[in-house]
Amino acid sequence: VVQSSLNPAAVELGNHRHFMHKEIFDQPQAVIDTLQGRITDKEVITEAFGFQAAELFDQIKQVQIVACGTSYHAGLVAKYWLEDIIRLPCQVEVASEYRYRNPVLQDHTLVVSLSQSGETADTLAALQLIKQRAQQLDFKHIASLCICNVAESSLTRESDMTFLTHAGPEIGVASTKAFTTQLVALALLMMVLGKRHKTLSVKREAAIVAGLKKLPGLIQNALTHEAAIQQLANSFADKHNALFLGRGTMYPIALEGALKLKEISYIHAEAYPAGELKHGPLALVDEMIPVVAIAPHDDLLEKLKSNLQEVNARGGQMIVFEDEASNIQSDGSFKVLKTTSNVGRITAPITFNIPLQLLAYHVALIRGTDVDQPRNLAKSVTVE
Amino acid sequence: VVQSSLNPAAVELGNHRHFMHKEIFDQPQAVIDTLQGRITDKEVITEAFGFQAAELFDQIKQVQIVACGTSYHAGLVAKYWLEDIIRLPCQVEVASEYRYRNPVLQDHTLVVSLSQSGETADTLAALQLIKQRAQQLDFKHIASLCICNVAESSLTRESDMTFLTHAGPEIGVASTKAFTTQLVALALLMMVLGKRHKTLSVKREAAIVAGLKKLPGLIQNALTHEAAIQQLANSFADKHNALFLGRGTMYPIALEGALKLKEISYIHAEAYPAGELKHGPLALVDEMIPVVAIAPHDDLLEKLKSNLQEVNARGGQMIVFEDEASNIQSDGSFKVLKTTSNVGRITAPITFNIPLQLLAYHVALIRGTDVDQPRNLAKSVTVE
Repeated sequence: VVQSSLNPAAVELGNHRHFMHKEIFDQPQAVIDTLQGRITDKEVITEAFGFQAAELFDQIKQVQIVACGTSYHAGLVAKYWLEDIIRLPCQVEVASEYRYRNPVLQDHTLVVSLSQSGETADTLAALQLIKQRAQQLDFKHIASLCICNVAESSLTRESDMTFLTHAGPEIGVASTKAFTTQLVALALLMMVLGKRHKTLSVKREAAIVAGLKKLPGLIQNALTHEAAIQQLANSFADKHNALFLGRGTMYPIALEGALKLKEISYIHAEAYPAGELKHGPLALVDEMIPVVAIAPHDDLLEKLKSNLQEVNARGGQMIVFEDEASNIQSDGSFKVLKTTSNVGRITAPITFNIPLQLLAYHVALIRGTDVDQPRNLAKSVTVE
Repeated sequence: VVQSSLNPAAVELGNHRHFMHKEIFDQPQAVIDTLQGRITDKEVITEAFGFQAAELFDQIKQVQIVACGTSYHAGLVAKYWLEDIIRLPCQVEVASEYRYRNPVLQDHTLVVSLSQSGETADTLAALQLIKQRAQQLDFKHIASLCICNVAESSLTRESDMTFLTHAGPEIGVASTKAFTTQLVALALLMMVLGKRHKTLSVKREAAIVAGLKKLPGLIQNALTHEAAIQQLANSFADKHNALFLGRGTMYPIALEGALKLKEISYIHAEAYPAGELKHGPLALVDEMIPVVAIAPHDDLLEKLKSNLQEVNARGGQMIVFEDEASNIQSDGSFKVLKTTSNVGRITAPITFNIPLQLLAYHVALIRGTDVDQPRNLAKSVTVE
């Protein structure tokens, strides 16, 4: 038994009705705390990942992420970043599948485990399996990094390196600020790996650092749209189902948005990469099903728009979250919310997640569920 | 314009009310036709993948599968087989995501595209992207294999090798026999790759061939359970949602079962790897939601049983498909259907898929939907 080092002030509700609400609004500060001491004006600090980081990172040729639930979604975002931006092969897998399927482990792999608590049973077991396999196969270049929110947790003890998210205690069962700070940690990891492997230019690194510094402000700005989102939540009052759509990094953000709604409002929300719509889920679309789309102004916007036309043509109740440059025109048959000015590759998915958290929260309030302690769920899944 | 070589007799309904029903019952023959000429008594014939197969397969070190919808689910099953049985690294991705995310391509990769029609727009574009990248990067060992059901299709023209599934014409929009024969094709591919890479013993190969030869009979046997499944379908008459659970190769089979139900009955069915249940979806479970579990007698059965207890304890309407050795005891609060005697690693997922097809079909009949032409969907998705 480890003594809790929680600061009592940090777990007080303040003006918030629920811990989840408080934790959503904690996010600008949680991002500041997670960046603090890990970046300079223009650079990420390699040693933020430990004194062995440079040596261990130099030896690896690919990344394997293992995680569960919300943390798995953070890992999926990182895959897009790692491959697109620094050209490092990355695989992400649900820990409960990875550990039991006799996977192929390759030498020169960085194993990244993600878990708020650092105690998730399947994630811990997946990491232990990898270490055991590496020993049997006599692999010399398997390095492990745990990104978690709790110092001295089981995952930190099993890992070569630990990067703590400084989200502060998260009480609400549905993870919010832990997810956001995991994404910040993964962005920093991407940059350090890119520097070590010389696939990230000084200029690009400085640009990403500048974007991360703007992130608390961007999140703050997204939070100012709460009243509009609260209004929007009314349209979910009598709904049993919802679809969430995104492309690229917005696909995992759609997964996370759907999971939040599922967890706390008990609405059956499911996410799809928008390009898969025509391969089945479009059959569900009628005037009864809300379809939430995440539409940043990026290379995929035109593709997404044509997916949205398909939904609209079939009478789906569409709700589009866009940024200031997206400019999706509604003919009145669907709703468009500008929730951010941001279109950065790193900051966009983190920022677009915020209105989806608020949406889930306000839908749950309307439906009168127990927001902080949703039925059937526990905060840390420490058994299989 | 290519002249259709369809045999008119093959597209007649016979005694079946719908093409989908006919195609479900075509499956034993479709498997025989797909195996025909590709295996001997004890072996798979390498040349079944073309005269270049041996040379091209020898050069590759990993497999990248790209596909959409149902074909993507077949690819996911293959990943489990390739890594577990012949230790070849395999990645599977939705084509519409792969093509737009600037993925890392590695030399010595076998690219497998899966599509019933051979015309799926995103799958074709993903393959073209890979070929273009390979040229730019001067990779000499990228080989492409298309597994499809239509000769002379666009994918066959773009690929170094083609393996035709001999499912015969598939008219129902919801794919059934094309999926089953894709799995047979992928099992044969796994064996050939294992032989070439010397990771599949003669004994194991013979055992898998023997299993495949039993497959038409196993499917036939699964089809005899139609009356019981029809009975079961009644409990979906007034439902709007369902969860499907599986572990290992049964996870993609759960995905496919959920997709069938979605496509033709418009019930919002979603699949999860059973281990992820506690990380969110368990919040949805109450006495109104049917939970379908696929429970073969394998290493994961005990884990699955404990997941099922969680569902049962929360009043979920559980339906378990098991095999003769699983022996899941119901206290009367949930239903158990023994649908197969099979527990082989290759034949089990193919066989367990059959009752899920019948379930979707009979639920759709009860709900009075247009089984062969579900709303909003087309047979081949030849536009993005």
